[in-house]
Amino acid sequence: MRTSQLYLSTLKEAPSEAELISHKLMLRAGLIKRLGSGLYTWMPLGLRILRKVERIVREEMDKAGAQELLMPAVQPAELWQETGRWDVFGPQMLKIKDRHERDFCFGPTHEEVITDIARNELRSYKQLPVNFYQVQTKFRDEIRPRFGVMRAREFLMKDAYSFDASFDGLKASYAKMAVAYANIFTRLGLKFRAVAADSGAIGGDGSQEFHVLADAGEDLLAYCPTSDFAANVEAAEALAPTAPRAAATETLRDVETPKQTTCEDVAALLGISIERTVKLIALVAADGQFVIALLRGDHSLNEVKLGKLAGMGDFRFATEEEIRSTFNCPPGFLGPVGIAADIKVIADRTVAAMSDFVCGANKPKFHIAGVNFGRDLPEPALVADIRNVVAGDPSPDGKGVLELCRGIEVGHIFQLGTKYSKALNATFTDVDGALKPFEMGCYGIGVSRVVGAAIEQNFDERGIKFPQAMAPFEVAIVAVGYHRSEAVKEAAEQLYAELAAAGVDVLLDDRNERPGSMFADMELIGVAHRFTIGDKGLADGVVEYVARAGGEMQKVALAEVPAFAKALAV
Amino acid sequence: MRTSQLYLSTLKEAPSEAELISHKLMLRAGLIKRLGSGLYTWMPLGLRILRKVERIVREEMDKAGAQELLMPAVQPAELWQETGRWDVFGPQMLKIKDRHERDFCFGPTHEEVITDIARNELRSYKQLPVNFYQVQTKFRDEIRPRFGVMRAREFLMKDAYSFDASFDGLKASYAKMAVAYANIFTRLGLKFRAVAADSGAIGGDGSQEFHVLADAGEDLLAYCPTSDFAANVEAAEALAPTAPRAAATETLRDVETPKQTTCEDVAALLGISIERTVKLIALVAADGQFVIALLRGDHSLNEVKLGKLAGMGDFRFATEEEIRSTFNCPPGFLGPVGIAADIKVIADRTVAAMSDFVCGANKPKFHIAGVNFGRDLPEPALVADIRNVVAGDPSPDGKGVLELCRGIEVGHIFQLGTKYSKALNATFTDVDGALKPFEMGCYGIGVSRVVGAAIEQNFDERGIKFPQAMAPFEVAIVAVGYHRSEAVKEAAEQLYAELAAAGVDVLLDDRNERPGSMFADMELIGVAHRFTIGDKGLADGVVEYVARAGGEMQKVALAEVPAFAKALAV
Repeated sequence: MRTSQLYLSTLKEAPSEAELISHKLMLRAGLIKRLGSGLYTWMPLGLRILRKVERIVREEMDKAGAQELLMPAVQPAELWQETGRWDVFGPQMLKIKDRHERDFCFGPTHEEVITDIARNELRSYKQLPVNFYQVQTKFRDEIRPRFGVMRAREFLMKDAYSFDASFDGLKASYAKMAVAYANIFTRLGLKFRAVAADSGAIGGDGSQEFHVLADAGEDLLAYCPTSDFAANVEAAEALAPTAPRAAATETLRDVETPKQTTCEDVAALLGISIERTVKLIALVAADGQFVIALLRGDHSLNEVKLGKLAGMGDFRFATEEEIRSTFNCPPGFLGPVGIAADIKVIADRTVAAMSDFVCGANKPKFHIAGVNFGRDLPEPALVADIRNVVAGDPSPDGKGVLELCRGIEVGHIFQLGTKYSKALNATFTDVDGALKPFEMGCYGIGVSRVVGAAIEQNFDERGIKFPQAMAPFEVAIVAVGYHRSEAVKEAAEQLYAELAAAGVDVLLDDRNERPGSMFADMELIGVAHRFTIGDKGLADGVVEYVARAGGEMQKVALAEVPAFAKALAV
Repeated sequence: MRTSQLYLSTLKEAPSEAELISHKLMLRAGLIKRLGSGLYTWMPLGLRILRKVERIVREEMDKAGAQELLMPAVQPAELWQETGRWDVFGPQMLKIKDRHERDFCFGPTHEEVITDIARNELRSYKQLPVNFYQVQTKFRDEIRPRFGVMRAREFLMKDAYSFDASFDGLKASYAKMAVAYANIFTRLGLKFRAVAADSGAIGGDGSQEFHVLADAGEDLLAYCPTSDFAANVEAAEALAPTAPRAAATETLRDVETPKQTTCEDVAALLGISIERTVKLIALVAADGQFVIALLRGDHSLNEVKLGKLAGMGDFRFATEEEIRSTFNCPPGFLGPVGIAADIKVIADRTVAAMSDFVCGANKPKFHIAGVNFGRDLPEPALVADIRNVVAGDPSPDGKGVLELCRGIEVGHIFQLGTKYSKALNATFTDVDGALKPFEMGCYGIGVSRVVGAAIEQNFDERGIKFPQAMAPFEVAIVAVGYHRSEAVKEAAEQLYAELAAAGVDVLLDDRNERPGSMFADMELIGVAHRFTIGDKGLADGVVEYVARAGGEMQKVALAEVPAFAKALAV
């Protein structure tokens, strides 16, 4: 393609709406244009990149034996009512009434539809396993769309659904998808990590997320460099300390903390390590019971883990009013000593192993030190893992020490089991003649989000450094002086024709612009390799080559350029 | 691909919901599955066909210099309010409220969005012309969805929009699209016709429809076999008779027509040609005026032409009550003689040239004969072309005689002019420094409808006879006895490998089914070419070949099959 035939519209400055680097760069490079909140047009240059991602996704899905189909985006409410998700999916789902006042939704996901197809189509174990996928525009009505394509309302998704006759079959289908996903992100040239995940609202028995590693990632991941353990912090287990609780050595005493309401400040005032402090979080469980959670001062509460404990369910944080009426004390000075017997105490495993600790005194401007379970307060009603892991924690597989990094979730694979097949009564006749519900898996990739994530991972001050497989063009030929030098024009056209004929994805920059502005555009949009043809080089019989990924400028003899460029192509 | 890896689900009988042959065959072949009214899932086999159509559409659009982008399906109401179409588009448009109660629609078309992009992006004549297109799922809330993918609510469309600096530029862009469309339908292997069309609600200055010719087509087309004239009957001009009106020779007289209320019946009773009768149609114009239209007995009213006459606009047919109170006579015996002077009479050109004709007498059970304008009633207030052409009419280009055929509209190209650019204030700076609105064109193809239309044109009692470019597979190898004969398996696998390696789109039917059922499936789904490998043929060193398009079965020597098959591939 030639720049003269390509709609290019780069900007010097990103619109102020953009916060995230990928959003800024996508707008500056003209890959997308905003239509409304969370709604973007993919301009021709951006669509080239999106299509490259789509192609690799399709190839690997096909290779893994999945079959592509295309379900309607608009779905009848009845199916969602059958699974009960019509009411629970929440306001992210765009509900629609048609002209006959019947209820529909713009599908945020397709478990219901595919399970309906399966119950109508798949009768026998002989038809299993089968894995159907589609690449489709989805809509989720985010409350605060932001970050461009990273959290858009309308986005492109690959969703796949597997049907198996047994749980072992599901595990095999799931494992195939895990391999396919690794192949996809590897081929895309992204640094990624597959991590154990919480299954969340989709439900089911096991799941893994695929994250593109990037500092701006919304998710915190824990991994063990000396083993293959990796998990979203939401799902990473914090092991109990192996050493037993030390015996009490201190006496209980009040310490004055006139302005110190955080463990950090209290530890600093007392000149002790924050690891000797305990903080209290006041909660109301799903069943209405008042609960306190105890965490070491430097640890943070893991709401997912806590929500899974019996009775906690959809817990909430207590209001300040509830706290004051329960403790007769303002937040910042709360502690577990001397509280009413009907308040349930859940201690994190780490806290349960502590002795001689410092915590709030339940009176304003005071903490207490030398606190010990069994002596100063009862042993906690429940000891559980309710905190987020931190760097340095032992890996749950016992093979090392955890490190943390940030990631952007671009894929998620789930073992759904029979959740949807049972709800929709989707059954098949097994080899023994019995009717059984399908064992299902589902497998998503946020295709448009992959583009944003790739940029978060690959950029510099000059713009986007797409991995070659995602670059809008593999090779750019910048013809400096194309419109005034016959020699430049001829050399550029010849090289362009030769590379195009060889199947290289090449862009000829034939604009009548300053060289600096042409270079800046090619760098901004992330073309992988650039050859510059100009009169000066041609006089010496050379062309300048530079890789967007980095490295020095090289001079390549004109005659050698075609072979050189072809060798660079994917 | 192998049938063992392909989800095939053919049916012996079509579900009773299907009326149209293409709908029946698509369901029987398992190309689509119904999810709800006007909502279909494209199953893997059907999607293969849809993708082949998409690919050819994209290739020809790209070749014509158009650039693909992808706009959001969900569009903010504000843009539609700017052009005034939010209220006038009608209930076909699916309106949505998001979680913040803001109005959106699931886009039925994208003139507003693309014009918004143009006004933000295109500043100068130097950026023109440009033509953007997308291939996207659209939604139109049809009041009675039917005919499967031919009139579905959710469907796949290619829509393109051109922007030019001048009307001449628009004409050139439009002409390019006309060529691209002809290339597309030619490459798809369809018998089609481009016809002049009425622009309808989209508006603008000129338009052409592309029709796939098929007996079941909803549209009637007129064309001249001895010239290149072709038009939708809606838009085809009926020329005025060249011979002047003959002089009156008969006297006016009542004829008793006790039960004859139609021109056919009156002509039969009187033993005259229907071409000597005139019928009256009572109408109420947009401005409320009572109007009568006079047509020759065998002609039919063209509502589009009538609606374009001054004052007629959104006319409607008079109610029986209005007719009785105006004429003091029931419908079936109405005529133009002796009516009130304030009733406007519009005569079709053919009627205006008639003399001594027969029409209703304006009294029950009577007609009158020997009627003549100027003698028995005034000359009509207006003479105009208000009828549909019929076979045998002179071609409007004066180069022959019209014939009629039926077609299915699969494409429509429009010269929009400045309708949308003016409404949205989308302007550019022209070479003279003046701000001007863009001259726009828009160009649609109903991608999913093309599949249905192709089937309407190409089927027989055994199933679908897709043109090769649209066939789900170019070549099928039916291996009879694959699971019991090593020789068959080996020969089939070798041929399959060789054809696949040569890039032939080949399906190996490796199922353990009766040969008749395998043949029936391959015929039903419309594979273009079939090779049958069986023990009996192998003993003679031959393979049986048959083309889905028709023709005798041939025996081909095993060694020659690869070359033979490769020569068949597109």
